[in-house]
Amino acid sequence: MRVLVSEVGPRDGLQSISAIMPTEAKKRWITALAAAGLREIEVGSFVPARLLPQLADTAELVAHARQIAGLTVAVLVPNLKGAEAALAAGAHKLTIPLSCSETHSLRNVRRSHAQMLDEARAIAAAIRELPAAERPHFEGGLSTAFGCTLEGAVPERRVVELAEALMDCGCDEVGLSDTNGYADPAGVRRLIRAVWAGVGRERLTGLHLHNTRGLGLANALAALDLGISTLDASQGGLGGCPFAPGASGNIVTEDLVFMLEAMGLDTGIDFRGLLAARAVLASALPDEPLYGMVPLAGLPLNFSQSA
Amino acid sequence: MRVLVSEVGPRDGLQSISAIMPTEAKKRWITALAAAGLREIEVGSFVPARLLPQLADTAELVAHARQIAGLTVAVLVPNLKGAEAALAAGAHKLTIPLSCSETHSLRNVRRSHAQMLDEARAIAAAIRELPAAERPHFEGGLSTAFGCTLEGAVPERRVVELAEALMDCGCDEVGLSDTNGYADPAGVRRLIRAVWAGVGRERLTGLHLHNTRGLGLANALAALDLGISTLDASQGGLGGCPFAPGASGNIVTEDLVFMLEAMGLDTGIDFRGLLAARAVLASALPDEPLYGMVPLAGLPLNFSQSA
Repeated sequence: MRVLVSEVGPRDGLQSISAIMPTEAKKRWITALAAAGLREIEVGSFVPARLLPQLADTAELVAHARQIAGLTVAVLVPNLKGAEAALAAGAHKLTIPLSCSETHSLRNVRRSHAQMLDEARAIAAAIRELPAAERPHFEGGLSTAFGCTLEGAVPERRVVELAEALMDCGCDEVGLSDTNGYADPAGVRRLIRAVWAGVGRERLTGLHLHNTRGLGLANALAALDLGISTLDASQGGLGGCPFAPGASGNIVTEDLVFMLEAMGLDTGIDFRGLLAARAVLASALPDEPLYGMVPLAGLPLNFSQSA
Repeated sequence: MRVLVSEVGPRDGLQSISAIMPTEAKKRWITALAAAGLREIEVGSFVPARLLPQLADTAELVAHARQIAGLTVAVLVPNLKGAEAALAAGAHKLTIPLSCSETHSLRNVRRSHAQMLDEARAIAAAIRELPAAERPHFEGGLSTAFGCTLEGAVPERRVVELAEALMDCGCDEVGLSDTNGYADPAGVRRLIRAVWAGVGRERLTGLHLHNTRGLGLANALAALDLGISTLDASQGGLGGCPFAPGASGNIVTEDLVFMLEAMGLDTGIDFRGLLAARAVLASALPDEPLYGMVPLAGLPLNFSQSA
């Protein structure tokens, strides 16, 4: 079984730290990640530079990453305006985040569910205006799908309804995000099955997991067991977790890749290449803590990758 | 489903640090752990005090822990001499460690496999001399079952053969230990099934996992999915990992209990009580780093335990 590890560090990691990584360093990092075998990288987010100055160079990064053969260049777009910039830049994949907690949505992007669904519909329409061969993949990312620090538990029924609504708006696919590290393996399995029942198995193939409470890889395993084939991860857990100083936010790419390769699943990613990319990141952001247990402990003696 | 979390911190944690925790503090910690709902605690190891002065008070701790109603008092015994001391003290459960890597066995306890099996046979005989009602449970703990830092991979066939040999020696049960954090979820499932095929499902019900490479809870999930019902863990990941400074060795009790309770599995353990026991530990060993993501991040908003 092949598993797609989607690297979100250049977006989710960099947006979570105050330091601004120089564009040339970002390009070197993205190049190194792709050289290690990463086949999908979320290189940035098309948000106003005054809100996230760390990601102001996203268009330039898309242009850079598009030159790397075989790489899917993904970006986050919070609204139609961002999507138009993403289309102009030529991103291969656009993800609009929709927080299942409306409280969180209003707090985070100042938009209700209805307003966000309007944006999704407008983005899908803009994509349809392109020639078929140029249309990017359009995903709806259901954040706080496993619970919210403001609302607590999020009803499963609401997640399914929002997934259905995103498909009705013209998304190609939905993803589930455990924004706060609230998920557990049983809940992961339950919610995947519920969303599959609503929108179809082929419309949910990926998860975005956090490791806030240490369950990130267990949750990944629970999803893999069901057949989920795409997992987001961030190199070095860059950005950490704002709610738990000292803990990584996103699951760590290095540890996830080790788990998958140790299980005999094919990621196409070379561990040594991953450490080389980590070194590029570390040298560009020497003051940021990087996480990950395998980089610390090393690979097991005589460990060989499936590839 | 009920899961038994077996606390090994007072043995595995304390033997891994150079500080010696005062006996009275150990008693307070054990009492607090039991008050939180832990039903089995490995309180020490009957080894010569010159080798592990940290555990020289094991007999006194057994006597203390035996007074706690409903608590299974477990100890490690490396040989017959240790077992005789354990029997004299009145421990409810004795575990003899047998390293599947003979290189590791020779290095660690200066005994070959044959010599260790002789010890196990002699211990089983000593136990049989007791009146039936007083006989402790006798387990063979297969360490380095998932690989060894000296030998690398350990053949599955050897683990199964050693499990069979331990049963022939008179053990009631075997356990599998991932001493170096080499295990992955697929390997966990493969080895459990192989050992079950050799000695029977009821003769392997527990695993001892480490989190050296971050896969501890994923490996626990893999085992739970098959029906493994006992998992060792160490409060605060005490003792860390000698091969990876900054990382916990044993899986952390707090994080494991959170995962199990979040999944709706019944541990009988109250999370607040667990944090109270952690505070006892922290105040007794103020210079030792404690690990665990849930103590750092806190429980999810409105989280309620199954109990």
